[in-house]
Amino acid sequence: MSRLFSHSAMARIGSTLFEAVGAPKVEAAFVAGELVTSSLMGVDSHGILRIPEYVELVSKGVVVPGAQITVRETSSTTAVVDGGLNFGAITAHRVVATAVEIASKHKTACISTQRCNHVGRLGAWVQALAQRDLIALATANSPVHGHFVVPWGGKQGRLATNPMAYGVPTGGDPIVADISTSVVPEGKIRWHRNQGKPLGEGWVIDAEGKPTTDPNRFYGPPMGGILPLGGSAGHKGFALSLLVEILGSALAGNRTTDATVVGNGFCVIVIDPSAFCPIPQFKKLMDELVTYIKSSPPAAGVEEVLVPGELEFRTMRQRLQQGIPVDDVTWQLVEEHARRLGVALKAPTA
Amino acid sequence: MSRLFSHSAMARIGSTLFEAVGAPKVEAAFVAGELVTSSLMGVDSHGILRIPEYVELVSKGVVVPGAQITVRETSSTTAVVDGGLNFGAITAHRVVATAVEIASKHKTACISTQRCNHVGRLGAWVQALAQRDLIALATANSPVHGHFVVPWGGKQGRLATNPMAYGVPTGGDPIVADISTSVVPEGKIRWHRNQGKPLGEGWVIDAEGKPTTDPNRFYGPPMGGILPLGGSAGHKGFALSLLVEILGSALAGNRTTDATVVGNGFCVIVIDPSAFCPIPQFKKLMDELVTYIKSSPPAAGVEEVLVPGELEFRTMRQRLQQGIPVDDVTWQLVEEHARRLGVALKAPTA
Repeated sequence: MSRLFSHSAMARIGSTLFEAVGAPKVEAAFVAGELVTSSLMGVDSHGILRIPEYVELVSKGVVVPGAQITVRETSSTTAVVDGGLNFGAITAHRVVATAVEIASKHKTACISTQRCNHVGRLGAWVQALAQRDLIALATANSPVHGHFVVPWGGKQGRLATNPMAYGVPTGGDPIVADISTSVVPEGKIRWHRNQGKPLGEGWVIDAEGKPTTDPNRFYGPPMGGILPLGGSAGHKGFALSLLVEILGSALAGNRTTDATVVGNGFCVIVIDPSAFCPIPQFKKLMDELVTYIKSSPPAAGVEEVLVPGELEFRTMRQRLQQGIPVDDVTWQLVEEHARRLGVALKAPTA
Repeated sequence: MSRLFSHSAMARIGSTLFEAVGAPKVEAAFVAGELVTSSLMGVDSHGILRIPEYVELVSKGVVVPGAQITVRETSSTTAVVDGGLNFGAITAHRVVATAVEIASKHKTACISTQRCNHVGRLGAWVQALAQRDLIALATANSPVHGHFVVPWGGKQGRLATNPMAYGVPTGGDPIVADISTSVVPEGKIRWHRNQGKPLGEGWVIDAEGKPTTDPNRFYGPPMGGILPLGGSAGHKGFALSLLVEILGSALAGNRTTDATVVGNGFCVIVIDPSAFCPIPQFKKLMDELVTYIKSSPPAAGVEEVLVPGELEFRTMRQRLQQGIPVDDVTWQLVEEHARRLGVALKAPTA
């Protein structure tokens, strides 16, 4: 069951909770705003349900609210942002700001991170950059304990679901793609197990490396693995996943197998298209490209061909009007944390 | 049927033919060398069989041997390389040199192209950059007449098979990934039709948007479409393909639907890892990562987990010893062109 809440009320609630666990007012509001925006855009897995989770991560000492972010510029176009274990969104926000600053001078930039907690919706950061008229690529790896995804031909996990995202400005909403390089995220498998439902074909293998649709054969023990994106061409998803790992670990000077590394190895590359093509012309070319792509007649059962991000922006406009569905489990956790922290919640119904 | 030829003999033959159609000696040798190296590494589709094809493209005026390449630096980190319709490999080589030069000063670079013919094996260029201790990403789109790949949910092609490649230095051979963002290339479908064999499941749809394994239903008319990489997650392959198109067309200031645009819209992004991590440490971390990936026990029927590029480097060492298999059709075309051009071919058997 779920109820509809307004985005502004949920952002206020999240902000109040984050402040109650020690986040400075501005940072609390920013992190809550990002999570609620994810839900607003329909990416519920990286949205409001993370509010109680983040509060718990603070209790566990994983997230250190208010920790200082330091930016070390390592060349004219590169920087390392050390998040100091602050909320990942605070670190990512600083990465975006640094990328914008460098690109304004040199047209390209590459930023890597240290001690960066969960950055949430990866697409949020390339979207922010695209809205500043930059083309942005972003990747995020995860530490060794999340290595559920097998390398192509292997039967033991060596990689995380390793998402990559890109954003490109257009005359309207930017193109925002945000994809994991595995067939499915682990959370989806857990959901199927909890529901007693079989998995899709080609999602996972068991510990012996055999295809299975039984979530229990995946979890074992011994554990199986999630397959990389691509089906019979899974070597391609594996190659993409490996790139995300390289940009998140080796480039940042970290060992992939270092169990003390936390959070996301977040890497952002930006290109200012104005170095190649005046922005108005670039946007016009992008709009023509979008029109051309969408002019492909839809296949049976499909209403309309959509470009990456289009569905999310539509969902955002709809949920701004109608409210965001929040499931009861999440809402109860929010209420429990509020009680524990002595915070009064205003009735937030949309 | 095929025979084995030595790489040096084949490179000499290719070079002689390209000189005979007007290429300067150094450029002829470079283009032939690149094609033969592709075959040496097992990428036969982009190898020796292109020698007669390129000779024909010169006859048709598509390729203009010896055309001047111009490099326009558009900012401290960006440049546009105009290939002037020379062989694509000559243009790509200049892109690589420009990227190395910019990165040596500024650590990141982005280069796009104009009038760039077929660049051949995309992995060749990121490999060359990785061998100069740079991380490199490369993409190549193709003009509208090669738009066989449907956007996700669509039933008419709007994108080419749009490959992307990346290269990363290690202590040994670099990691070199080179993948199309569609399930299969069009050439593979043609091969199946010619052999009278059914296609794999999930490769293509017919003109009505229905899945088919019949190559004739793909070719029509009306023509169907190749599916983007990803199977049930084909929206991910579509997103990647769209990125390749954007970097190849809009970023270069070209309209996607402009039928006068030729060849590949080739785009290269480089990052010098030394901006983040001393090169010896970076290579050590990469070697540890490769060891970790390869430590995944192989699945049933798989001998060994391989990282991207590993198979190609192995094939190269083997074919350097044993020679390169060249199919009779290709060899006959080479002989025909040699006769037509009045060029004597030495017996090239390995």
